[in-house]
Amino acid sequence: MTSDTPLPPGSTIGILGGGQLGRLLAIAAAELGFSVHIFAPAGDNPAIGVAEAATVADWLDETALAVFANAVDVVTYEFENIPEETVRRLAEMVSVYPGVNALAIAQDRLAEKTMATSLGLGVAPYAPIDSAADLAAAAVKLTLPAILKSRWLGYDGKGQVLIERPEDTDEAWRIVGAVPAVVESRVAFRTEISVILARGSNGETRAFDIPENRHERGILSTSTVPAAVPVVIGERAIAIAEQIAAALDYVGVLAVELFVVGEGDSAELLVNEIAPRVHNSGHWTSDACLVSQFEMHIRAIAGWPLPDPIRHSDVTMTNLIGADVEGWPELAAERGARLHLYGKSIVRPGRKMGHLNRVTPRRN
Amino acid sequence: MTSDTPLPPGSTIGILGGGQLGRLLAIAAAELGFSVHIFAPAGDNPAIGVAEAATVADWLDETALAVFANAVDVVTYEFENIPEETVRRLAEMVSVYPGVNALAIAQDRLAEKTMATSLGLGVAPYAPIDSAADLAAAAVKLTLPAILKSRWLGYDGKGQVLIERPEDTDEAWRIVGAVPAVVESRVAFRTEISVILARGSNGETRAFDIPENRHERGILSTSTVPAAVPVVIGERAIAIAEQIAAALDYVGVLAVELFVVGEGDSAELLVNEIAPRVHNSGHWTSDACLVSQFEMHIRAIAGWPLPDPIRHSDVTMTNLIGADVEGWPELAAERGARLHLYGKSIVRPGRKMGHLNRVTPRRN
Repeated sequence: MTSDTPLPPGSTIGILGGGQLGRLLAIAAAELGFSVHIFAPAGDNPAIGVAEAATVADWLDETALAVFANAVDVVTYEFENIPEETVRRLAEMVSVYPGVNALAIAQDRLAEKTMATSLGLGVAPYAPIDSAADLAAAAVKLTLPAILKSRWLGYDGKGQVLIERPEDTDEAWRIVGAVPAVVESRVAFRTEISVILARGSNGETRAFDIPENRHERGILSTSTVPAAVPVVIGERAIAIAEQIAAALDYVGVLAVELFVVGEGDSAELLVNEIAPRVHNSGHWTSDACLVSQFEMHIRAIAGWPLPDPIRHSDVTMTNLIGADVEGWPELAAERGARLHLYGKSIVRPGRKMGHLNRVTPRRN
Repeated sequence: MTSDTPLPPGSTIGILGGGQLGRLLAIAAAELGFSVHIFAPAGDNPAIGVAEAATVADWLDETALAVFANAVDVVTYEFENIPEETVRRLAEMVSVYPGVNALAIAQDRLAEKTMATSLGLGVAPYAPIDSAADLAAAAVKLTLPAILKSRWLGYDGKGQVLIERPEDTDEAWRIVGAVPAVVESRVAFRTEISVILARGSNGETRAFDIPENRHERGILSTSTVPAAVPVVIGERAIAIAEQIAAALDYVGVLAVELFVVGEGDSAELLVNEIAPRVHNSGHWTSDACLVSQFEMHIRAIAGWPLPDPIRHSDVTMTNLIGADVEGWPELAAERGARLHLYGKSIVRPGRKMGHLNRVTPRRN
């Protein structure tokens, strides 16, 4: 596939990962007439139930990867917690979008911040941490409270550690697992927004309208569109995402989470997180836009034209986390709401089980 | 499942038929967290590619039917050209919606017209035909031109025969295959509309807004919403569909095609065809409504609440028939349009390959 030859319907899209994002991408691909082949390690993989084919194997199973690469026309991934090596090997055999560079940077919190800084973008004050001594020194320089996070994804979930006083640093270092990390000051932001940006291989971009996001206990709770931020803030946010996408030579849908610090047109935007994939804060697009983020991503990686992200409705997306999903009979009856369930067989606290889009006529 | 216990997410919906309607139903079911199991004879079955499981077997394979019935929680069908016997056997083992009665009547053009007439509904002047002599007699009584159609579906496609002069009847009888038939006068209608009606097992109904349909060479070409007919005509059309659905004790989405004869509020409505399933003239609902006809059907057969069929946009659906689909690169680039392709591997003249919904903001 060259950049000016779109992948014809009937081609097979390979998706790494079998979770809900893979499932929603697989459906979008099927609606365009593509076949889908999921590659995922054993486990609860709801994406497999809506795909034409599936390979269940370890991320580093070379034979399985080669067979998979041979069976598909293009590869994408539904999340960034995949060994870089997996994507690197596949990329030697078949086109992979987004590229391995985007994956590598999104997996490395330090590289993410370094890149943002090198592009002249704002981030929360931070310091790289490789030892307890580093952390003790940083806790003096940075404004507390601060958050210590392991540098790379893929370490088993030690989570994030809040540091409120300089004397907490030794314990925080132990809790995070004494692994390379990043510490950053907690920012007093007014609100959080995100940009859901599609970029084609020809460099064209399309940005959906900006959602405003609320998190609860570290998990996205709601995304509301339009966001209650000035138009100019939305425009600056999109420009930031475009800058990042261009720097990564990105193909596909990219999500950039941003903190809005301060009020009005002069508010500052700080890059919080870059996700090289469709994003939970874009799930509202399925019911408020003609073309969803999932279709937009499939179009981008297939070399199809990227449509204007026309939005016909206002919307609030609410995640159904863990036991929330048990309210499905009431949610299914709610007027003006569309329920999405992911077909996961096991409910666990904190697990994303579905979402609800509450839609109203567009006001402007 | 009783009428007041909705089928929980994670249950398995069995679908008879593997074509595009099965595919679109399977996707809608997956979006609600259901698993889907397709039953279809060997062939090009695009629905299988988006389903969790599939049984490929003949319609009358008793063992396969029993295994299928055992694997699913409820059964529906994507088209009416299935042996009544298949549905009758399944209904002894598992709930089937719509019921076998609706299927039987929709398969029998004479029974369809008899039922409509017995409900006091208008139909084109018609006569049952069991012999060449019947046809000769009818050609004298009915206004010509008239159309001769085999009475039952499932006879191999002798199609429909136009009778323009009384002396054409012997040849017409031969062409239709000398099988039980119905002849009906061709109606000089102003336009064609259809009702896409959902009915739950509790008797509640929901009607989508009325589309106006254009056919070309006997195949649906476009459906436009809103239809250019007076409001009162739409209301009467919905009342007709509700009457039919109640008479059939119907559960699921039912489509009723109607001729509008004459002008204005006093136009007459004639029942043309009843389809016990989601319908091509309802494909616009996917992109102009919060909940599509496909989700509405799945909800009805699963005993879920039926939402108001809120329409947020105006729309024209255009079918992509045969080689039309080769225009996909241009169609995929059209602003304000959403392309749907069915993943069929073989293009044939007259074959439905996809559709395009051209969407504009709702005007009223």
